[in-house]
Amino acid sequence: MKTRAAVAFEPKKPLEIVELDLEGPKASEVLVEIMATGICHTDAYTLDGLDSEGLFPSVLGHEGAGIVREVGAGVTSVAPGDHVIPLYTPECRQCKSCLSGKTNLCTAIRATQGQGLMPDGTSRFSYKGQTIHHYMGCSTFSNFTVLPEIAVAKIREDAPFETSCYIGCGVTTGVGAVTNTAKVEPGANVIVFGLGGIGLNVLQGAKMVGADKIIGVDINDDREEWGRKFGMTHFVNPAKVDGDIVQFLVELTDGGADYTFDCTGNTDVMRQALEACHRGWGESIIIGVAEAGKEIATRPFQLVTGRVWKGTAFGGARGRTDVPKIVDWYMNGKIAIDPMITHTLSLEEINKGFDLMHAGESIRSVVVY
Amino acid sequence: MKTRAAVAFEPKKPLEIVELDLEGPKASEVLVEIMATGICHTDAYTLDGLDSEGLFPSVLGHEGAGIVREVGAGVTSVAPGDHVIPLYTPECRQCKSCLSGKTNLCTAIRATQGQGLMPDGTSRFSYKGQTIHHYMGCSTFSNFTVLPEIAVAKIREDAPFETSCYIGCGVTTGVGAVTNTAKVEPGANVIVFGLGGIGLNVLQGAKMVGADKIIGVDINDDREEWGRKFGMTHFVNPAKVDGDIVQFLVELTDGGADYTFDCTGNTDVMRQALEACHRGWGESIIIGVAEAGKEIATRPFQLVTGRVWKGTAFGGARGRTDVPKIVDWYMNGKIAIDPMITHTLSLEEINKGFDLMHAGESIRSVVVY
Repeated sequence: MKTRAAVAFEPKKPLEIVELDLEGPKASEVLVEIMATGICHTDAYTLDGLDSEGLFPSVLGHEGAGIVREVGAGVTSVAPGDHVIPLYTPECRQCKSCLSGKTNLCTAIRATQGQGLMPDGTSRFSYKGQTIHHYMGCSTFSNFTVLPEIAVAKIREDAPFETSCYIGCGVTTGVGAVTNTAKVEPGANVIVFGLGGIGLNVLQGAKMVGADKIIGVDINDDREEWGRKFGMTHFVNPAKVDGDIVQFLVELTDGGADYTFDCTGNTDVMRQALEACHRGWGESIIIGVAEAGKEIATRPFQLVTGRVWKGTAFGGARGRTDVPKIVDWYMNGKIAIDPMITHTLSLEEINKGFDLMHAGESIRSVVVY
Repeated sequence: MKTRAAVAFEPKKPLEIVELDLEGPKASEVLVEIMATGICHTDAYTLDGLDSEGLFPSVLGHEGAGIVREVGAGVTSVAPGDHVIPLYTPECRQCKSCLSGKTNLCTAIRATQGQGLMPDGTSRFSYKGQTIHHYMGCSTFSNFTVLPEIAVAKIREDAPFETSCYIGCGVTTGVGAVTNTAKVEPGANVIVFGLGGIGLNVLQGAKMVGADKIIGVDINDDREEWGRKFGMTHFVNPAKVDGDIVQFLVELTDGGADYTFDCTGNTDVMRQALEACHRGWGESIIIGVAEAGKEIATRPFQLVTGRVWKGTAFGGARGRTDVPKIVDWYMNGKIAIDPMITHTLSLEEINKGFDLMHAGESIRSVVVY
């Protein structure tokens, strides 16, 4: 079949809207009509050539929502007509990682996914006979895409595509970091470094679970208004703090935060986030992806005196199990998404979405097919 | 009263055995006759002038066992004749830290303890009218010492002093790191870096809780025999491994260890310990105290993909609650201490104990009064 898609033919060039050839689903695969997709910093990171493992040409996009149109042999968990969110972190429920009960980082198809291929080692996309790579196992910048059965989460049918697509990455990453990775408890004090889309979702996750002080830290004062919409109780601009920001935050939280979250990707901020934790039990969660080659550092004394350094990917969420729950939280009003979708674009306007993100003018731009 | 003690008059000099004046216990304090004390690397660290906060003159020693001889006003939890282990990490059960239920790092008397003083801001020790500092709130290199009531753990009377004193620091630090901090579960794979006294206690803690592979790593081949005595199943000498030690250990553990422990104090080894953890859930616990100014570092990707970096002090043990249990474990044969006491000395021989330690010729030297 044919599908309209925005293709990244080479790094640092705008995406091109073309018609691709798409092979139908093989065994254990499904064909999904993508109805909407967010544009995430990770797509830009790859498109900008910063990911040394980025593959071209490829169909980027990993934050989508759509409808199953066809299933391959042996598929039992979804059927045509089902609404789904593609999962860049699949959930096979059979590998060592899934069975451990300790992580969401399913390894069933990791190798081929990293090569931009389906689990059988081939691509379903081609353009004029040339193979086009899949991306993060999703490729939601194509109106139709093929996904492994273990990489789709079935969701309720009353959830709007143009907002619930954001649950495919940003919402789950931020909210899940609070609920799955940190397991923030009611009354806890929380500090969130960086109030972009992920940071805002951490804030609303912290609010949802009943955190006490919810402190947002950003060098951009315009983010204060955004933060307050999503549960932030205190705003701190480090550029306007006299003296050491860590010391300031430790005092603001009466000894340090119970949980801190880095949503900046800046390794210096990651260190501040750790050191702003309370002695004895504070936990710092790294969400941001750092520049290649950058390292985090601290004195081991910080850990020996009880602080814990962790990270999270996809908010620690098991895709097929937890993503439908987050859709429920959204539909039941426990978390908000609509105000975060600042721009809705057509596929033809997708490059504008990248421009808005680079300019810091969007929280989330969504392409609606 | 008078007490015989080994006094550190100045850094980098041998201890001097002298008779000190000792004031009796004030309110909420107890007088303890120390019956035996271990000599720990931390004592040497201070004596060697490496601790920038070390105070002189002082009575070092923090790993003791003895008998309560007198109690001050208001003391209710112990009485003369009780056998006790002094606690450099007290347990007041009333401060924010104790009440958190999340840490053993009681803060009730932290400030004065750091100043080498009793909680009322004075010292009980003096020599010819000159104040002598307390050390780590214990000063077990004195035959008699005064301790806050919250800094003694009452233990069973059939436990021999010359072995159970080791529970005052090394045993609890190693075993507790396994049971309290890491909470190693049966079947887990464990790697222990550094097979000194702490490392051996981590090994036997891992064995006690039913760990599967218990791998010891040390650059000294002589440690293999020691490790095997305490539950080690595999020995690795990094100097004899071709290629990368982390890669080697990851392969040996089929993807990485569930728990790793650094007992070396070397920040490069701390990094190896983290990176030898299993993707998705491996936890690395820093026990060793690093050189002043040294920092740990890694790529944040290591944490984002699920590894957790932690530390532990006094094995995460609440002194008055957990130390008596560890004495029980010893007396019931769940853990061994006797073979680790390689040298028993008189107080007059205490400097020999430091020499043995520096030469790597002892696991633990104990002074018996």
